[in-house]
Amino acid sequence: MTAPTSPAPAIEAVQWFNTDTPPSLDALRGRVVVIEAFQMLCPGCVSHGLPQATRIHETFSRDDVVVLGLHSVFEHHEAQNPTSLEAFLHEYRIAFPVGVDAPGEPGGLPITMARYGMQGTPTLVLIDRKGHRRVQHFGHVPDLRLGAEIMALIAEAA
Amino acid sequence: MTAPTSPAPAIEAVQWFNTDTPPSLDALRGRVVVIEAFQMLCPGCVSHGLPQATRIHETFSRDDVVVLGLHSVFEHHEAQNPTSLEAFLHEYRIAFPVGVDAPGEPGGLPITMARYGMQGTPTLVLIDRKGHRRVQHFGHVPDLRLGAEIMALIAEAA
Amino acid sequence: MTAPTSPAPAIEAVQWFNTDTPPSLDALRGRVVVIEAFQMLCPGCVSHGLPQATRIHETFSRDDVVVLGLHSVFEHHEAQNPTSLEAFLHEYRIAFPVGVDAPGEPGGLPITMARYGMQGTPTLVLIDRKGHRRVQHFGHVPDLRLGAEIMALIAEAA
Amino acid sequence: MTAPTSPAPAIEAVQWFNTDTPPSLDALRGRVVVIEAFQMLCPGCVSHGLPQATRIHETFSRDDVVVLGLHSVFEHHEAQNPTSLEAFLHEYRIAFPVGVDAPGEPGGLPITMARYGMQGTPTLVLIDRKGHRRVQHFGHVPDLRLGAEIMALIAEAA
Repeated sequence: MTAPTSPAPAIEAVQWFNTDTPPSLDALRGRVVVIEAFQMLCPGCVSHGLPQATRIHETFSRDDVVVLGLHSVFEHHEAQNPTSLEAFLHEYRIAFPVGVDAPGEPGGLPITMARYGMQGTPTLVLIDRKGHRRVQHFGHVPDLRLGAEIMALIAEAA
Repeated sequence: MTAPTSPAPAIEAVQWFNTDTPPSLDALRGRVVVIEAFQMLCPGCVSHGLPQATRIHETFSRDDVVVLGLHSVFEHHEAQNPTSLEAFLHEYRIAFPVGVDAPGEPGGLPITMARYGMQGTPTLVLIDRKGHRRVQHFGHVPDLRLGAEIMALIAEAA
Repeated sequence: MTAPTSPAPAIEAVQWFNTDTPPSLDALRGRVVVIEAFQMLCPGCVSHGLPQATRIHETFSRDDVVVLGLHSVFEHHEAQNPTSLEAFLHEYRIAFPVGVDAPGEPGGLPITMARYGMQGTPTLVLIDRKGHRRVQHFGHVPDLRLGAEIMALIAEAA
Repeated sequence: MTAPTSPAPAIEAVQWFNTDTPPSLDALRGRVVVIEAFQMLCPGCVSHGLPQATRIHETFSRDDVVVLGLHSVFEHHEAQNPTSLEAFLHEYRIAFPVGVDAPGEPGGLPITMARYGMQGTPTLVLIDRKGHRRVQHFGHVPDLRLGAEIMALIAEAA
């Protein structure tokens, strides 16, 4: 975590759920931001990634940590459209804001997913108080380690 | 289980996945049939009901026990249409035949679900070798008890 | 399960807990008997074998199925003596009868364990209504399969 | 966590396992110390507390965090004596140092347990780099929160 870091790429979302104002990383500067990129029909996202994001949302103060879901669809586009996502978020009681990642070129990755170089879903990104991307996990990461990684960023000065 | 039983209502499906020939309870007479009624966006179905149905499918001989999924949608119709279901079955590696329960009147229950008097999803139904409905569980049922219930029906003469 | 079977070897216990009268397989003829052989310091017994035995004890009618624990100590004899076992049974709320397997020759297996040819702990044995040993599992066995195996024996005539 | 804190009481152990030199909080000054107080026949310690302590031991650098087990026996003294504990630590593959809390007055709590005012087992204590006790949990604490609490202390200057 001592390597030089750079500002996190902007989130390009075409629509947001669970929020009245579209969140932006710029506006969240000063807080730690957790991005949980997922697909609603990705089993690992449903069983692990999203429940973990919910635990983060419920464990930390909103003044320190903001959790954002990002629906980064790269397959089954018809089945995972925003209408379906809305039903999914309702049934799974997802309470944090969720953006719909903007589609890229046909057959390609959605735009934010591509900007972050994500390899698949679920991917969890930690952005520090200065807006720099610091940690990116593809797949499962244990709660104990993740709690420590988040607190390491909380403890830093803005 | 000593009460008089009656033939299980027919399954009314508009479409089947994971099978070339639409299964019918009549044609399955002589075997124990397990119906797993579910909705693809029902969390309890995804975390408990469907994995349990898969365990049944993998544990018993196909000569004794046939597992049928039944997608009985009574809410979020748009999000849970057959195209979405197909993607879901693929992602969750569901290997047994799954029928799409025929829609009922607008705002009402699908037809098979109504015939069986199901209260919601997941619902698991056990049909004996004679084609009679013998057990119906709404919600979670422990594996140990379910294994015993299935074997009790296997042990009966056809 | 069609191979010729023979009477289950007698249980040789030096002491029993959770029962006033020492159980005997002869006296239990007519019922299905489940023997759960374990050691109190065996992690797999504590996390899987004994909780499963408790589920069996709680799921089936005592008229059909009797669960017997068997403390078959073949290592750490001092740490796993009957006084320690009594505390263990109390703390873990084990409710079914538990016998202390009679010690064999120094450095050898306890007597009942040797008679059954058990390879280690946990081992689960199913004995049918006629007193014949029918199933013996070393290690983990899934609840669904075990429930079916028990019911197959319940369904047989005595 | 802004209340004035005071030095953690010394550990009074009559014996140590998994270490050649008895650890002391004084000698560990400069590092975060995690004390996991347990009893080998306490089900919650075996299923949750000790596996969590092992995860801490494996997740953090030994330069930052030191995990110490403390066998604080206040019941079933005969069954939970040091000989039994040694077998338990072997079977459960506990790799961090474990001290045997010094017995207090007959019928009373062991000495370290009393000094810390622990209410039972498992109890987890976090001591900061300056040797001050900062967090004490009786019972279950989620990994995500615990990981954050440990990192908060790691992030402080010694």
